[in-house]
Amino acid sequence: MRRSDQPTRELAIERLDGEHRADDRDRVVVENPLELRARGTPVATIMRTPGADLELVRGLLHAEGLAARAHQVDADAIELDLDPAAFAGRGLLASAACGVCGRVAIADLERRAREVRSDVVLPRQVLARMPAALRSAQSVFAATGGLHAAGLFTTDGVLVAAREDVGRHNAVDKVVGWALDAGLDPARHVLFLSGRAGYELVQKAVMLGVPVVASVSAPSSLAIELAERFGLALVGFVRENRANIYAHGWRIA
Amino acid sequence: MRRSDQPTRELAIERLDGEHRADDRDRVVVENPLELRARGTPVATIMRTPGADLELVRGLLHAEGLAARAHQVDADAIELDLDPAAFAGRGLLASAACGVCGRVAIADLERRAREVRSDVVLPRQVLARMPAALRSAQSVFAATGGLHAAGLFTTDGVLVAAREDVGRHNAVDKVVGWALDAGLDPARHVLFLSGRAGYELVQKAVMLGVPVVASVSAPSSLAIELAERFGLALVGFVRENRANIYAHGWRIA
Repeated sequence: MRRSDQPTRELAIERLDGEHRADDRDRVVVENPLELRARGTPVATIMRTPGADLELVRGLLHAEGLAARAHQVDADAIELDLDPAAFAGRGLLASAACGVCGRVAIADLERRAREVRSDVVLPRQVLARMPAALRSAQSVFAATGGLHAAGLFTTDGVLVAAREDVGRHNAVDKVVGWALDAGLDPARHVLFLSGRAGYELVQKAVMLGVPVVASVSAPSSLAIELAERFGLALVGFVRENRANIYAHGWRIA
Repeated sequence: MRRSDQPTRELAIERLDGEHRADDRDRVVVENPLELRARGTPVATIMRTPGADLELVRGLLHAEGLAARAHQVDADAIELDLDPAAFAGRGLLASAACGVCGRVAIADLERRAREVRSDVVLPRQVLARMPAALRSAQSVFAATGGLHAAGLFTTDGVLVAAREDVGRHNAVDKVVGWALDAGLDPARHVLFLSGRAGYELVQKAVMLGVPVVASVSAPSSLAIELAERFGLALVGFVRENRANIYAHGWRIA
């Protein structure tokens, strides 16, 4: 697949508004891998929104105390005039992506993910109550205004676990860890996020095996592609009366 | 320093409100390193909010297709019953932190940072206009609701560069890369963020050499410590009439 070099993409969604449910179009932010090559050798993959790629790489290298001439090979790759050995042990480099840090190929991540097996259909009234329920569970930390939250709900809307962290990915890892400890049947549960749904968070949901990921905010293009591919319903901008469905809308009744 | 195992911390701030400026207390979210050891060997450091550490590690390992018995050594470390070789080449493991991915010691990051040399004092009226100015520059992507932005302003309030990305760190790397290309004098500029100010973003600001980091949202405890230590003013929750100053308030007039 030739990847887009545009920062946003328009795609088909279903829009829920009160009693209405309608096909519509929505514009989402693009999240794509950018491969860094040092004299031809792939050394890192950065998940990023296309645009200003050379600046991104220069800034990343600077944070590492590195500098190199760089040129854009194509929309997916940048070539650096630098010894590949300069990247040895630098797990840090790709961390800015919060994505596929230290991984050379995105295909590797996809190989480890399995299609979600679940016939769960979630009533939209249940979905509508999740944002408030998760916020209630956040009361302890609410004062700081600085925390991401992730929650696991049953398909009846019962919040069974909520965890918070300064890192969005950490909050998800904490509820996943809880679910594994608790022996939870992931196929009967929904992962709800307080923030944006990026690729890596949907990947964690796939690895856990939940059939629905919902959030109060926007998904990225790659998160949508992954949800589509692995059988998850992906719902964004969940409010009391509204929501946008980006993938597998049949799971939302 | 013995690190806190509490998820939030109260500390002294200055609160700006209209014409008033007053000392106050504020509660911030704690961001601390958690070291993972595999049979005694440090294999990764995760930046996280303390709490549910064992669940966090179990979830992280699961995303890697790994599982191991784990026990909490102290507030700063978890010991895994796992061969350290299992972590070879796994830059991914620590990425959930968006922090010190793949780095064994936080001290290493601190060694690379320099104290900011600048006598810049920023009028608060200039600060107050930054959120709207950055939002205006975001108009192209505003429709998606899914993007982080970072901007560089002169101390007169002129926005000289704004970049956006699905990843918060990427947006900062893009403006840093632009600034390096442009030969900008960082000592006369302010880094403004559309989101939360975590440790790594302040570290990037230190590496660039800007004397002020401001954001519309909350800073983490470690971001504040770093700003304090390296001479940066750190301002959060910036609104037209309000702001909280977390470090080096003398830089805000």
